Amino acid sequence: MKVTVLGAGAWGTALAKVLAEGGHAITLWGHDAKRLEEVKRSGRNERYLPGVELPKGWQFESDVARAVQGSEFVVAAVPSKAFRHVTSRMPDYAGVVVSVTKGIEYESGLTMCGILAETAPKAKAAAVSGPTFALEVAKGIPTACVVASRDPGVVGASQNLLHQPTFRVYTSLDILGVELGGSLKNVIAVAAGVCDGLGFGDSSKAALITRAMAEIRRLGVSCGAQGDTFAGLSGLGDLTVTCFSRLSRNRGFGERLGKGEKLEDVLGSMVAVAEGYPTARSAYQLARKHNVMTPVIDEVYQMLYEGKNVRQGVRDLLARDSKPED
Amino acid sequence: MKVTVLGAGAWGTALAKVLAEGGHAITLWGHDAKRLEEVKRSGRNERYLPGVELPKGWQFESDVARAVQGSEFVVAAVPSKAFRHVTSRMPDYAGVVVSVTKGIEYESGLTMCGILAETAPKAKAAAVSGPTFALEVAKGIPTACVVASRDPGVVGASQNLLHQPTFRVYTSLDILGVELGGSLKNVIAVAAGVCDGLGFGDSSKAALITRAMAEIRRLGVSCGAQGDTFAGLSGLGDLTVTCFSRLSRNRGFGERLGKGEKLEDVLGSMVAVAEGYPTARSAYQLARKHNVMTPVIDEVYQMLYEGKNVRQGVRDLLARDSKPED
Repeated sequence: MKVTVLGAGAWGTALAKVLAEGGHAITLWGHDAKRLEEVKRSGRNERYLPGVELPKGWQFESDVARAVQGSEFVVAAVPSKAFRHVTSRMPDYAGVVVSVTKGIEYESGLTMCGILAETAPKAKAAAVSGPTFALEVAKGIPTACVVASRDPGVVGASQNLLHQPTFRVYTSLDILGVELGGSLKNVIAVAAGVCDGLGFGDSSKAALITRAMAEIRRLGVSCGAQGDTFAGLSGLGDLTVTCFSRLSRNRGFGERLGKGEKLEDVLGSMVAVAEGYPTARSAYQLARKHNVMTPVIDEVYQMLYEGKNVRQGVRDLLARDSKPED
Repeated sequence: MKVTVLGAGAWGTALAKVLAEGGHAITLWGHDAKRLEEVKRSGRNERYLPGVELPKGWQFESDVARAVQGSEFVVAAVPSKAFRHVTSRMPDYAGVVVSVTKGIEYESGLTMCGILAETAPKAKAAAVSGPTFALEVAKGIPTACVVASRDPGVVGASQNLLHQPTFRVYTSLDILGVELGGSLKNVIAVAAGVCDGLGFGDSSKAALITRAMAEIRRLGVSCGAQGDTFAGLSGLGDLTVTCFSRLSRNRGFGERLGKGEKLEDVLGSMVAVAEGYPTARSAYQLARKHNVMTPVIDEVYQMLYEGKNVRQGVRDLLARDSKPED
């Protein structure tokens, strides 16, 4: 099958590799023609997936409309802040678009598939989320994720497309729950990273995660998602791995803040986007809109946008008097 | 208040330190009079809490009946296999007994507070569980846990006793759920450790944890516990930290198996008990009794008691076709 992957970062490249190994013909789109040329030439994406050899025979394309033409599936793997812009370049696309981007648009409060309904209304939207790291997926380490869509046919087709022996794809019809779980956990991972950077123990972090899990579910359900989705791979599974793994970008972002680095310096020096940063602001606003108590998100928001001291923020969180199950 | 701590291992000694710092008079009981003498002499418990200076003025006692005499609270921190024996030495004790032991008795299927109802029927039973490590607690790193009892008065009194600025104690009336969450997660931690030892990634482990969380809850509810308890500190919180932290004894036990060490060698060389080992057998039996599907527990049981190859066991788990949310 002909598949277009939008986004030549770590996740887009890793999924293109998985799909190529599944026998699909890959077109990879990236916004930076020069870098795309370099990937084509070297057969590697050294900046984002160091040391990983890519399969041969891919098409490379730096124009979105041309890239998606004739493809039955599009995998959208661009940063959340570019999602509206990129997908607005394919307004008539009518195939399946699988979003693997995690985030919530600040202005609209929409998840990526919500944006897609506006930018490419004929497309059939699906979302993939779960406890995966691009580098692990690219190396063929066993991984599991969830694909969700409102349309069972789209779910099945997307599962068939993506499923591999080492990349197991489970299914859900709760697309909003899957997208929100994946997006909100990035905010929590920042707090977990701050804990690490400050030298707090694993048990402090576990207490934080427990409370955060309840808060994510509460906010998600208020937005219309199903509560049980947050107990699955795209909720609990993704949250735990993001908060504990050394590979997690958002945890690492928080860790540097916890160690005393300045926010501007950390943001300025990251190779890839820490989605937890923009999502903290969107999630904070979403919680206000739905009138939901979100103590962890609120603290992260205050650390990132209101200059609150990170040590004080984490201390306030760990010392809160409400029950962690609340 | 006069408090007796039964058990001079890592957890017993750490809790005795917390209680002493809270102004309570400590009597520490240990089964090994010689080792107890050494702790008394050196002011440290070097074997279990290396590098931690203990407060002065404790009583040391190697006879259980004498140790608990006149104490309003007893904290039971002995290994699960010794719990029945030790508590049967205080049959008339009528104060509060807070069990911090995690395990399920194989012969009876009882948790520690279930055993206590038989061995010391006049005692008021409570259980403490949660994402805590003795060494972190002893060092004053912020930690949270849950105390549970069927009796709200006992819960409140135990919370007052234990709560400290860096050791936050939340409450629950679901004693069985709190005990089962703490016990069953040790079995899962063995599987997580095997994953680590085999070199699987964090995302494999997250998929395992997600499935295990559903399984623990299912088994717990079948035994009469409340489902929501497993989403709290003593369920989710404890499970995640045990599966990810380098400090976790049960994860470390599994890791050594995953690296190819022989079961007998690992068991023979551990300083402290890995409760996941006996609990795997009890949990496996409990699941049969209640007719509950427990794929993770079953695999761990087969690895530990039926000689199943650990690599095959983990592969079978990660490749199972049922949905992780099932």
